[in-house]
Amino acid sequence: MARNQGLQPPRGTRDFYPDELRLRSWLFGHFREVARRFAFEEVDAPIVEHADLFIRKAGEEIVEQLYHFELHGRHLALRPELTPSISRMVIARAGALRFPLRWYAIGQNWRYERMTRGRKREHYQWNVEVLGEPSVSAEAELIAAIFTLFDRVGLPTTAVRMRVNSRALLEETLRKGVLRDRPEAFEPLCVVIDKIDKIGAEAVTDLLTGEIGLSANEARTVVEGLAVRSLDEAAARVPDGSAAAAELRRLFELLDAYGVADRVAFDASVVRGLAYYTGVVFEAFDAGGTLRAVCGGGRYDGLIEQLGGPALPAAGFGFGDVVIQELLSDHGLLPELAREVEAVVFAVSEAERPAAVRTVRRLREAGRAAELVLGTPRLKRAMQDADRAGAREIWVIGPDEAARGVARVRDLESGEQRDEKLPDGRS
Amino acid sequence: MARNQGLQPPRGTRDFYPDELRLRSWLFGHFREVARRFAFEEVDAPIVEHADLFIRKAGEEIVEQLYHFELHGRHLALRPELTPSISRMVIARAGALRFPLRWYAIGQNWRYERMTRGRKREHYQWNVEVLGEPSVSAEAELIAAIFTLFDRVGLPTTAVRMRVNSRALLEETLRKGVLRDRPEAFEPLCVVIDKIDKIGAEAVTDLLTGEIGLSANEARTVVEGLAVRSLDEAAARVPDGSAAAAELRRLFELLDAYGVADRVAFDASVVRGLAYYTGVVFEAFDAGGTLRAVCGGGRYDGLIEQLGGPALPAAGFGFGDVVIQELLSDHGLLPELAREVEAVVFAVSEAERPAAVRTVRRLREAGRAAELVLGTPRLKRAMQDADRAGAREIWVIGPDEAARGVARVRDLESGEQRDEKLPDGRS
Repeated sequence: MARNQGLQPPRGTRDFYPDELRLRSWLFGHFREVARRFAFEEVDAPIVEHADLFIRKAGEEIVEQLYHFELHGRHLALRPELTPSISRMVIARAGALRFPLRWYAIGQNWRYERMTRGRKREHYQWNVEVLGEPSVSAEAELIAAIFTLFDRVGLPTTAVRMRVNSRALLEETLRKGVLRDRPEAFEPLCVVIDKIDKIGAEAVTDLLTGEIGLSANEARTVVEGLAVRSLDEAAARVPDGSAAAAELRRLFELLDAYGVADRVAFDASVVRGLAYYTGVVFEAFDAGGTLRAVCGGGRYDGLIEQLGGPALPAAGFGFGDVVIQELLSDHGLLPELAREVEAVVFAVSEAERPAAVRTVRRLREAGRAAELVLGTPRLKRAMQDADRAGAREIWVIGPDEAARGVARVRDLESGEQRDEKLPDGRS
Repeated sequence: MARNQGLQPPRGTRDFYPDELRLRSWLFGHFREVARRFAFEEVDAPIVEHADLFIRKAGEEIVEQLYHFELHGRHLALRPELTPSISRMVIARAGALRFPLRWYAIGQNWRYERMTRGRKREHYQWNVEVLGEPSVSAEAELIAAIFTLFDRVGLPTTAVRMRVNSRALLEETLRKGVLRDRPEAFEPLCVVIDKIDKIGAEAVTDLLTGEIGLSANEARTVVEGLAVRSLDEAAARVPDGSAAAAELRRLFELLDAYGVADRVAFDASVVRGLAYYTGVVFEAFDAGGTLRAVCGGGRYDGLIEQLGGPALPAAGFGFGDVVIQELLSDHGLLPELAREVEAVVFAVSEAERPAAVRTVRRLREAGRAAELVLGTPRLKRAMQDADRAGAREIWVIGPDEAARGVARVRDLESGEQRDEKLPDGRS
């Protein structure tokens, strides 16, 4: 083999050295703390699933980019998203679960993307779901959790904007027009128009006429509708008494009670790229507009039934670990997280090691983060290492100290020194 | 597809519903707390690696059971163990790192095993490594961390025994005998004799003559040597001045200083099933002897150089999440971990929902775990649900309460009730 290839992780994947892992743990800690306050329960599913759990026919990018393979006669895949696994778990125990469920997971997802623009092939995602609740109170709760996270990590309220739409509203708009004779075209149509930010209106129009089979006129009408940025204007395009428009109005009322309505705007171009959404959809973007979506989600009332379960309304979002870190970095808000070593214990020679072991053991039993120097470098090197580790103190035990039954404790910041009695040999 | 297949995770893998996830988090929390006290730093690597990182030629079970596959022209694998990934990470930055490193990871590993005796195809593993320290002070520190974990989870000191040996001692024993003309047979020989507990002495003797090419006499001598349970007796079989015997003696001295020597015994049959170990090896077993090894590890001074890095001494262990839970369960020590919801907020009708939202928001801002009832069930059902969620209080806001500007707060244990003022509408 080319052993050197082995020095790097597979292309598009990440190693987490201690600095990066501390940052990840800091972010995951915020994910978990928001979930705790919102009373969501953590769950997890295998990172490898039967591939057909993920395969749908609407031409989604996520399905085209599946890491899938045959192994011992099974068609398996690394999950590209968590929602199908969570849906599967709900179905498997639907009879025993009490709805609505408030579940979340933090897991790694895989997509075999072309490696352009700093994209990765894996990312971790905070996935939050409400399962079994038909009303937009679920979406409001989910969107509020997202803003609570943004606030906790220190982003100014102006840093992120949430764009909201409803696929149900879009479907009502198109039902008597382009979808009249082919309602089944709605899912692939959504997948196509989701690409508008990436490929532009003209290319979307081409796909709508080519792949979806709309006339040029119909395609133009659809694309023009995506430019609407006012809920009133969008509501004017559907019949009076539209359930979807009423739901969106109610959503904004609830977001006002959550105190976040001024950070959320209606945007008819938001449809999301996954086939299974059926109702409210939303995406959060950095206000500068330079990054990909920070997170996104929506209602998927049909997925659980499609997978063979009961008809169960559901809504959720995915919030990746990569874009939020780019955004925090742009704002200078990534924390500097140092190692947390409180004391370093140093035996000057092997003769003092048992005493050093008893000392470090005592410190650890008291709950302190205590490092034992495992070799016998010179004192100067041990002090440098302790300093780099961010330790507050170094406990030095040499022949003199051992003879006196003490450790010499040096405060690495103030330079002050004191003696501490050694634990006795039979402790 | 057979959609029903999709209801279960792939064979041998686990879903984690909230109860199971709480237990896992409890265990991982102990892993992390021990690592913190021992001043180990957390790292992580991708779960998918280039397959050749794991492929060695000594006939190890772990390599035969690799989840590996070709994808877009690359030969990839789900990691079966963490040590090669961590070694790769060390090599990639060897010039910038300050040794010895004290690293740990908690990650999922995959093995395509035959599904017998309740074995799984994935498990999580607490992987702790000391990189860059040649002396047994590293092994002593690692073994002490393991016992600290056992103590923290509440196991009695008699519940687990550690068995220790040294491959270096075994190699010294065989060097002038069966290995004289073929030192390269040592790794596969270790892999074979590791199977003795599983397949018995006779089958191991057959493999030693068949696969390794020993004479019947040689094979019998090797197998007889595995029965030694006294370090003095084992040391008598190697030349005076044996470095390996001196190391083991030193290890027991240090374990005495750590206060765990009486839970550790020399056992010549312990060699571990991975090819790369070179020195001290150890395994912890339940005292009842009914379970597989709870954890195991040892010194692997050659691996990093074999992978293309510098000659770097290293030692570590892996501690899975499955056997420890079986052991805790056998001892009745698995904790009952309830959901931690402090308050449930309930709007009697949709008209009161905005007030309920403002109330739950206030509770969450104060750091409380507060659930908002998302629908409008009857009060009785809402109270039952709150009770099942383990909530201490339910905050009820109906038309009466809203008119009076209060929530009616009921303590679900004592039944006592009080009014709390509602946050005002513009809070």
